[in-house]
Amino acid sequence: MKAQRVEMFVCPSATPADTSGLQKLADAGKIKPDTLVALVGKTEGTGAHDDWGRIWADAALREWTAKFLGVSKDEVAKHVIFVLSGGCPGVITPHIAAITREWVEVADHRQGDEKRLVVGRAGSDAISPKVATATQEAMQDASLTDPKDVHLVMVKVPGLTTASIKDAESRGKTVVSHDLTFGPEGAGVYANDAAALGVAMALGEVPESRLADDVVRRNWDLYSEVAMTSSGGEKRHGEVVVFGNSTTSQSPLRIGHSVTRDFIDADGVRNALRAAGLQFKDGLPDEKDLDRLVHVFAKSVIPGSDQVRGHRITLLDDVHAYEIGKALGGMLVASVTGRTTNYVSGGERNSHQGPPGGNIVAAVVRAES
Amino acid sequence: MKAQRVEMFVCPSATPADTSGLQKLADAGKIKPDTLVALVGKTEGTGAHDDWGRIWADAALREWTAKFLGVSKDEVAKHVIFVLSGGCPGVITPHIAAITREWVEVADHRQGDEKRLVVGRAGSDAISPKVATATQEAMQDASLTDPKDVHLVMVKVPGLTTASIKDAESRGKTVVSHDLTFGPEGAGVYANDAAALGVAMALGEVPESRLADDVVRRNWDLYSEVAMTSSGGEKRHGEVVVFGNSTTSQSPLRIGHSVTRDFIDADGVRNALRAAGLQFKDGLPDEKDLDRLVHVFAKSVIPGSDQVRGHRITLLDDVHAYEIGKALGGMLVASVTGRTTNYVSGGERNSHQGPPGGNIVAAVVRAES
Amino acid sequence: MKAQRVEMFVCPSATPADTSGLQKLADAGKIKPDTLVALVGKTEGTGAHDDWGRIWADAALREWTAKFLGVSKDEVAKHVIFVLSGGCPGVITPHIAAITREWVEVADHRQGDEKRLVVGRAGSDAISPKVATATQEAMQDASLTDPKDVHLVMVKVPGLTTASIKDAESRGKTVVSHDLTFGPEGAGVYANDAAALGVAMALGEVPESRLADDVVRRNWDLYSEVAMTSSGGEKRHGEVVVFGNSTTSQSPLRIGHSVTRDFIDADGVRNALRAAGLQFKDGLPDEKDLDRLVHVFAKSVIPGSDQVRGHRITLLDDVHAYEIGKALGGMLVASVTGRTTNYVSGGERNSHQGPPGGNIVAAVVRAES
Amino acid sequence: MKAQRVEMFVCPSATPADTSGLQKLADAGKIKPDTLVALVGKTEGTGAHDDWGRIWADAALREWTAKFLGVSKDEVAKHVIFVLSGGCPGVITPHIAAITREWVEVADHRQGDEKRLVVGRAGSDAISPKVATATQEAMQDASLTDPKDVHLVMVKVPGLTTASIKDAESRGKTVVSHDLTFGPEGAGVYANDAAALGVAMALGEVPESRLADDVVRRNWDLYSEVAMTSSGGEKRHGEVVVFGNSTTSQSPLRIGHSVTRDFIDADGVRNALRAAGLQFKDGLPDEKDLDRLVHVFAKSVIPGSDQVRGHRITLLDDVHAYEIGKALGGMLVASVTGRTTNYVSGGERNSHQGPPGGNIVAAVVRAES
Repeated sequence: MKAQRVEMFVCPSATPADTSGLQKLADAGKIKPDTLVALVGKTEGTGAHDDWGRIWADAALREWTAKFLGVSKDEVAKHVIFVLSGGCPGVITPHIAAITREWVEVADHRQGDEKRLVVGRAGSDAISPKVATATQEAMQDASLTDPKDVHLVMVKVPGLTTASIKDAESRGKTVVSHDLTFGPEGAGVYANDAAALGVAMALGEVPESRLADDVVRRNWDLYSEVAMTSSGGEKRHGEVVVFGNSTTSQSPLRIGHSVTRDFIDADGVRNALRAAGLQFKDGLPDEKDLDRLVHVFAKSVIPGSDQVRGHRITLLDDVHAYEIGKALGGMLVASVTGRTTNYVSGGERNSHQGPPGGNIVAAVVRAES
Repeated sequence: MKAQRVEMFVCPSATPADTSGLQKLADAGKIKPDTLVALVGKTEGTGAHDDWGRIWADAALREWTAKFLGVSKDEVAKHVIFVLSGGCPGVITPHIAAITREWVEVADHRQGDEKRLVVGRAGSDAISPKVATATQEAMQDASLTDPKDVHLVMVKVPGLTTASIKDAESRGKTVVSHDLTFGPEGAGVYANDAAALGVAMALGEVPESRLADDVVRRNWDLYSEVAMTSSGGEKRHGEVVVFGNSTTSQSPLRIGHSVTRDFIDADGVRNALRAAGLQFKDGLPDEKDLDRLVHVFAKSVIPGSDQVRGHRITLLDDVHAYEIGKALGGMLVASVTGRTTNYVSGGERNSHQGPPGGNIVAAVVRAES
Repeated sequence: MKAQRVEMFVCPSATPADTSGLQKLADAGKIKPDTLVALVGKTEGTGAHDDWGRIWADAALREWTAKFLGVSKDEVAKHVIFVLSGGCPGVITPHIAAITREWVEVADHRQGDEKRLVVGRAGSDAISPKVATATQEAMQDASLTDPKDVHLVMVKVPGLTTASIKDAESRGKTVVSHDLTFGPEGAGVYANDAAALGVAMALGEVPESRLADDVVRRNWDLYSEVAMTSSGGEKRHGEVVVFGNSTTSQSPLRIGHSVTRDFIDADGVRNALRAAGLQFKDGLPDEKDLDRLVHVFAKSVIPGSDQVRGHRITLLDDVHAYEIGKALGGMLVASVTGRTTNYVSGGERNSHQGPPGGNIVAAVVRAES
Repeated sequence: MKAQRVEMFVCPSATPADTSGLQKLADAGKIKPDTLVALVGKTEGTGAHDDWGRIWADAALREWTAKFLGVSKDEVAKHVIFVLSGGCPGVITPHIAAITREWVEVADHRQGDEKRLVVGRAGSDAISPKVATATQEAMQDASLTDPKDVHLVMVKVPGLTTASIKDAESRGKTVVSHDLTFGPEGAGVYANDAAALGVAMALGEVPESRLADDVVRRNWDLYSEVAMTSSGGEKRHGEVVVFGNSTTSQSPLRIGHSVTRDFIDADGVRNALRAAGLQFKDGLPDEKDLDRLVHVFAKSVIPGSDQVRGHRITLLDDVHAYEIGKALGGMLVASVTGRTTNYVSGGERNSHQGPPGGNIVAAVVRAES
């Protein structure tokens, strides 16, 4: 039978357009045109909806990948999924994670049935039901059937721009918001949160009957524990990547996830590492543990309340909340992983990505040999 | 003989001018006109040199204290030292810590000779040698003779303002910088760092022979491990408060300090808690430990290098680095202490407060009864 | 018969709490406890909803006025209306304009029937119909009957704060927005624009039949040419001040207004000066003209379109648009008036204050003697 | 004899990498590989030293130009000079001005000896004497001998980056500043101002004997009235472009310049238009005048004083002063030219580009036919 063999390589980027890390992986034969399935990264820049660092990175990566794959730039999205999250404030190192999936012939299941990393993907439209369908398609692509085996669903949906709003309104359509920021009523967060509820629906975290337009960014009891969604003006269609564990996988990697209980909960981050297979007994991972850690994907959504464990914080009133909120998540993760090459997105206030006040953390760990 | 009995009370503030927490302490008899020696706090606002939140807080606190002490507003600085650090970005709760010092008659030394918290203070001018002298006077005031017993020296010096620069230049004087921000060449950081070297000199951390004008913000090998200095435009003279431990003290509190080895070093924060007397064995303090923690004072100086443990960060190029740098320190401390009422100042790049890349953390702990 | 005699004095402020200019006016007998009707000013600080500069100014001015009037701080709002607009970015000098109204006994109307400045005021709730009623009450108080004689209606309504939202939601109420900024979906702009439509209704600029909740910030064809509305978290009730011209007035001042046709229309500013009575023939006012100019009140609302006279600008995508938009209005006015002590508020995107893309400018001029 | 025929075309840019306007000019035969001498533009983005919008624009323009000229990307700088000024806050439309220079054979001088636009260029190092030499070389290239005929000298010099500072210090060199912002002690402004003094020296505006390292950003009486200098981290060598008028020119264009007397002086902008040949008598240019206006190049340097015409402004204390200062200059110019496609750079505090408090404005006008 055919089995997946998934690998993940993290390349720090020297500039938004830096593809040298990918080129080295290509030269070393670690990524191949027919194994590269996704590039997931953090890009330096403002992190705002018109962040030219991210947009330049997107252009440069697509150009490099088109050349690597030997296809035209327009074709590249059919082969490789790009998820670039803009803004690396604080201690988040700009980087690209290359994810490869090889199909290997195996006599039978691996021995011991230990579950290992699989990945699946699908294209999507931006609205919740379409994201739900795409999530299920991506699960199928990953050979996953049990939602419990899904530990991370990354969704990238189109975002509004000043130009696209003008276009929509010229066609007689209304838009949910004219605010292009990631503030509490910004267009970006509505798009992200509708997508998150689509994931929640697909995984049975939220029953379809409870979904309606007016619950988006209003009913915070509805959420997914594994959805990480982002939106960017330059996208025209959505993309879904599902990460999970399966006994059919031949990958040396494993994924796990957890949620933090509040904005300062370092233990939540440690729980994600444990869930992925690190077994530190004395409260903290040691260096040997962290050597096995391949990557962390985390959200850093600002809580909707101005109280953290009973004390007031002023973050909700801060004009730089979006950038600072993201930076704080980067520090929370880095203080646990002892490294800065973590994928941390966020900065928005409240989200259906994770429970109220808490945030999603997923970790990928190399299995002990 | 007479012995000090030092107490410390942390009051969250609802607004910059909120003195209700202090009033409650006064009503309960916990602070008295003749025991109150210092008010040390974090105030909400921009944290910039013209931060009106901090300036309003300063005015309101002085007015309240004058009334409490029954003296005029001009007299209040002779009795109580005010150290207000502006800017509570992220997870730093605005608060005021009231420090009291009572002189109690004791038959003899406490049994067991365990060292406990003492505090001393002195006024100062802004330049290094004067700060050094004031530090020694404050040690004397605290009955401390061994620099090793000193765990925190807070210094507040005057800062430049647009008005004071104009005034200085009209008198034919030159100023070190026209940059009023806390950027790497800002007037504020030069004032702070000259003061830090003064503390280092007083404590023998840096030999006097190595001090000269041109080492300030140039030779980072010279630093103090216990100096926390800040500057504010509204001050006209400097103030020094020394915190240490002494066997003569009758205080139920103890102070300890440590330095972080780099910007993401949560272990450095835990070491400060250990140094103050918490004895958590399994890597992490438990709730009972944290109940004994009274307060943490920490710096969050941005490193001079764009590398953290071998990976590039973009913080040095961030126009909001000052605010984000401070916020990150707040998260690092809160992720360990499990609370947001920590005193964290910083945001400047490089400092003689702490070693290159690392930061000072001091903790005050209630002794086990 | 009794006639109004209105005067206006502009005092630059050295700090948010600076009341020395008012004190000088009081000492000189120019403002008296029974003639002072309004204090309208620009305060330095961030201009955000939690701008401590504005909040401190508000506290200090109320305290000074209470003392001046010999009433308690709670009573002061019954006698004097405070309109403080936060944020003086760029070339806007922080200042307070004191407006006095004296009732003088006159034998009969002035000769020539030239219309002169009158002022009226009323308290109000925040919603449109109440603002409309209050506007009519204020007109009555000013002895104005013809809406054409009304050239400026200043309204200050309560704004949302993190605390007031929490309070509202704990009482089971929903709020229109959780965004406390002045961005396009911010709570502040909804409050301001509902008030502007109330003014438009009172003055017959918009028929009552066209007003409904869903036109606020959606139908930009509805607007007032003379409403300047602002909101602040510290207010609990609204206040309306009407400025107009009347033949009954004994004031040496006259008011006029105009609207700019777009964001760079300096001619619109000049038209306001002309409307108030300056008669510069050669395109530009000369110094003698400007000497007669007492004060300018202008809005600087960011256009809803990213096109100015056919070319794209990037202001709508700028994270600092609120501050920059306000600053640009300050420059447009200052470049015409040749001074920086202009009252310019704004920064929000789109508004029912003025026509789409254009802004309101009102000018007060001293009549030629 | 050979005579220059200089043309200038202004293309608004839809994105930083938009070269479609240039392509249209090329397709229409208006710019040719052997006539294109310079591309001078404003790019959207943060305007900070790591502004990815500008850096991306630079990469895209060089790539397009290399293709257009049929040379390699490394060669392109030998043929065309690129001056990209980052940041279009407020009402500055992102745009590229293409400047062409054709050598035409003429029988003799034009009749009437009216002076018309010429352009010259030269490469340079960053330090003042080298810039002076390059300015003279560029004058020679433009066939200009009298400094009075020079109305604009654009200089682009290399800027410091975090990486280049690290590199310099690893080679044992010191750098003038670790502050990479354009604040008053920032590295960028020192580079720009040293270059401006080089221009002043070349043009005899400042005698060579008065130039020394310690006058840079200290002695503001030394300045050039026609130097516009900027620095960018991605440059490795400097470039100088001189614009002037000459009777030998066959260009249909003329250039003129003026300086504003302070930050709100719209008349200074009008004077530049007059100097270039517009003759509006009634104080203001009419539409026919403005139709002849080809382009405006202006600086918007923040004054070193907090006083404008006797009143305090708070701009010097504003953390966003750099962006706002630039935006204000854009408004001052646009309010006069009635368009937003003006080249306005600036935002730094104080400069040797223009007199203290004032700013340089140069205008290019099409001669009446």
